[in-house]
Amino acid sequence: MHNYKELQSLFETNLEKEIAATNSRQPKYLYEPVAYTLQTGGKRIRPVLLLMAYELYDSKFEKAMPAAFAIEMFHNFTLLHDDIMDDANLRRNNPTVHVKYSNNTAILSGDAMSILSYEYLNSTESKNYREIFDIFTKTALKICEGQQFDMDFENQKEVTVDEYLKMIGMKTAVLIAASLKIGALTANASRQEADLLYDFGYNLGMAFQLRDDYLDSFGNTSSFGKKIGGDIIANKKTYLMLKALELANNNLKEQLNSFMENPPANRDEKITKVLSIYEQLDVARLTSDKMEEYYQKALLCWENLNVLNNQKQELLLIANKMMNRTN
Amino acid sequence: MHNYKELQSLFETNLEKEIAATNSRQPKYLYEPVAYTLQTGGKRIRPVLLLMAYELYDSKFEKAMPAAFAIEMFHNFTLLHDDIMDDANLRRNNPTVHVKYSNNTAILSGDAMSILSYEYLNSTESKNYREIFDIFTKTALKICEGQQFDMDFENQKEVTVDEYLKMIGMKTAVLIAASLKIGALTANASRQEADLLYDFGYNLGMAFQLRDDYLDSFGNTSSFGKKIGGDIIANKKTYLMLKALELANNNLKEQLNSFMENPPANRDEKITKVLSIYEQLDVARLTSDKMEEYYQKALLCWENLNVLNNQKQELLLIANKMMNRTN
Repeated sequence: MHNYKELQSLFETNLEKEIAATNSRQPKYLYEPVAYTLQTGGKRIRPVLLLMAYELYDSKFEKAMPAAFAIEMFHNFTLLHDDIMDDANLRRNNPTVHVKYSNNTAILSGDAMSILSYEYLNSTESKNYREIFDIFTKTALKICEGQQFDMDFENQKEVTVDEYLKMIGMKTAVLIAASLKIGALTANASRQEADLLYDFGYNLGMAFQLRDDYLDSFGNTSSFGKKIGGDIIANKKTYLMLKALELANNNLKEQLNSFMENPPANRDEKITKVLSIYEQLDVARLTSDKMEEYYQKALLCWENLNVLNNQKQELLLIANKMMNRTN
Repeated sequence: MHNYKELQSLFETNLEKEIAATNSRQPKYLYEPVAYTLQTGGKRIRPVLLLMAYELYDSKFEKAMPAAFAIEMFHNFTLLHDDIMDDANLRRNNPTVHVKYSNNTAILSGDAMSILSYEYLNSTESKNYREIFDIFTKTALKICEGQQFDMDFENQKEVTVDEYLKMIGMKTAVLIAASLKIGALTANASRQEADLLYDFGYNLGMAFQLRDDYLDSFGNTSSFGKKIGGDIIANKKTYLMLKALELANNNLKEQLNSFMENPPANRDEKITKVLSIYEQLDVARLTSDKMEEYYQKALLCWENLNVLNNQKQELLLIANKMMNRTN
C-alpha cells in the first residue's frame, strides 16, 4: 500500500517515459504538443486515485498504469480543447497549445489525445475489460455534455442551482468518480465495491469543485495563489452567484444583475459590492454547508468499503488533502 | 447475401433511427450538430463495406450494425474537424457545422462524435472484441497522423511521391481497410481472411484516392460534378503535381514552381498551362498506371479470399463501382 506522494512519484516516473516515447512519434507536430501538454504537470489527482483504488484490492499496481495514463491523457485532452473554446492563453503558467502552436494543431493534437487514451485503455488487462471501456466512454461523453452545458449557461438568462450542480457533476465529478471505479475494476474488485468508490469520487468531486468556487470569493489570496474575485469579474455563474440570485429579494437581485450587465469601471468596486451582497445572504456559509454535505456523503461511501481501515486510510487522507482539511 | 444497394438502404434505415435518437439527446447544441452532420449523407461506402465483409462469413448482418455506425460516425467526425482546419464553408452542398453553428460547437460536437463512435463499438458482440477495438483505435490514430502530414505538406517545400502515397494511405485507405477487417472480425472470420480484406481495402482505397486526384485534372466536368482544375488552382500537392515535379527537367520544374508562387491572374490560364506540362510528362498515363497497380493488388487479395466466388461477387462490384469501372 503506497501513500499519495509515493503513488504520485511512481506515476510521474512512468509517465515521463511515456512522454518521451510520445515525443519521438511522427509526425512531430501531432505528437510534440501532446507531450508538451502532459509534461506541464498538474497534480495528477485522477491517476493517483485510480492507482490507489487499484491497491485496495490488488498489490500489482503496475497493472493499473495503462488505465492511469488513459485517464490523465483524457483529462489533459479536455483541458486542451477547453482552452481553445475559452480562448485561454495560459495553462499552469505555460502558453496554451493553440497559442504556442496554432488552433489547427490544438484541435488535431487534442483529437489524437482522445484516441491515445483509448490506446492506453486497450492495453489494460482485466476480466472487467468491457465494463472498464463502458464506464470510460460514458464518462467521456458526460464531460463533453458538461462542457456544452457550461457554454450554454453563459448565454442563458436563468440558471438554477440544480442545473449548475448537474453541470459540475458532469464536467468535474464524473472523471474523479470513474478514475476510482476503473482502478477497482482493473483489480477485479466486486461491482459493489467499484460502485461505492464511484459514489465516493463523485461526491468528493462535487465538494472539490464547490471549494474552488468558494475560494475564488472567500479564499486567502496568499494561500489560494490567485487573486480573489476572478469569477465575479468574469460574471461566472458559480454556485455562490446562483445561490445569491436564488435568495435575493427583488432589490438585491436587481443590484446583482446590474453589476453583471453594467459593471462598475473599478474592478475592486464590483468585487466588494458583490461580496457584500454575498455576506448579507450568508452565501459563504451556505456554500460551505453544501460542500460539507457532499463531503459527508463521500465519507459514508468510504466507510462502507469492504476493506480494512488501515488499508483505506490513505484514500481518506487524499480526500482531506483535496479539501484542504487537516482532520 | 445483399447487394450494395440493399445494404446501403438497410444501413440508411437503421441510421435514420440513430440520428433521431441522437437528435433528442441533451444538451441540444452538442447533439444536434452531430445529427446534422450524419444526415447530410454521403455514399456510406465504409459502413456498407463493413456489412458486406460481415456477410461473407455470417448472415445475421444486424450484429454488424453497431460497428457500421461506429465507422460512419468516426468518418464524419474527421470530416467535421477537417472542415474547421481547412476553413471549408460547404460539405455535401450544406453549410459546414462551424459555419452553421460556431467553431466551439464544431470542436465539441466533433469530440463527442469521436467518443460516440466508441459507444457504438462498445455494443458490438464478438469474441474478437479486443482485436476490433485495437484495429479501430490504431486506424483512428493513423487518420490523425495522415491529416497532420497533409497539413505539413502545405508548408513543406519538397514532398516526395512516396511521402504523398504514405499520407493518403493514412488519411483515406486505412479506414476503408479497417471497415472491411472489422466487418470480418465481427463475424468471427479467421485472422487470415480479416487481413486479406484489410489489404484489399487498403489497395482499393489507394486506387480510389488516386482516381480522385486524376479526375480533378482529367475528369469530364459533367460527370465529375465539379470544375476541373480545383487542385491546380489551390496549389495542392497531389500525386499528379508531385509526379510532374519528379519528372520535370529544370526548365519545366521552374515553370511549375512559378505557377504556384506567382499564379497567372487568369484562373483558366494557370490550369491550361499546368495541364500542358502534365501532358508533356505523360502524367495522366502514369497516374492511371499507379491506380491500376493498386487495383490489381486489391484484386489479388479478393481472389485469395476463402469464400465462394458467387458470394464474394458483390464485393468486386462495389470495388468496380468505386473505380467507376464497368467490367
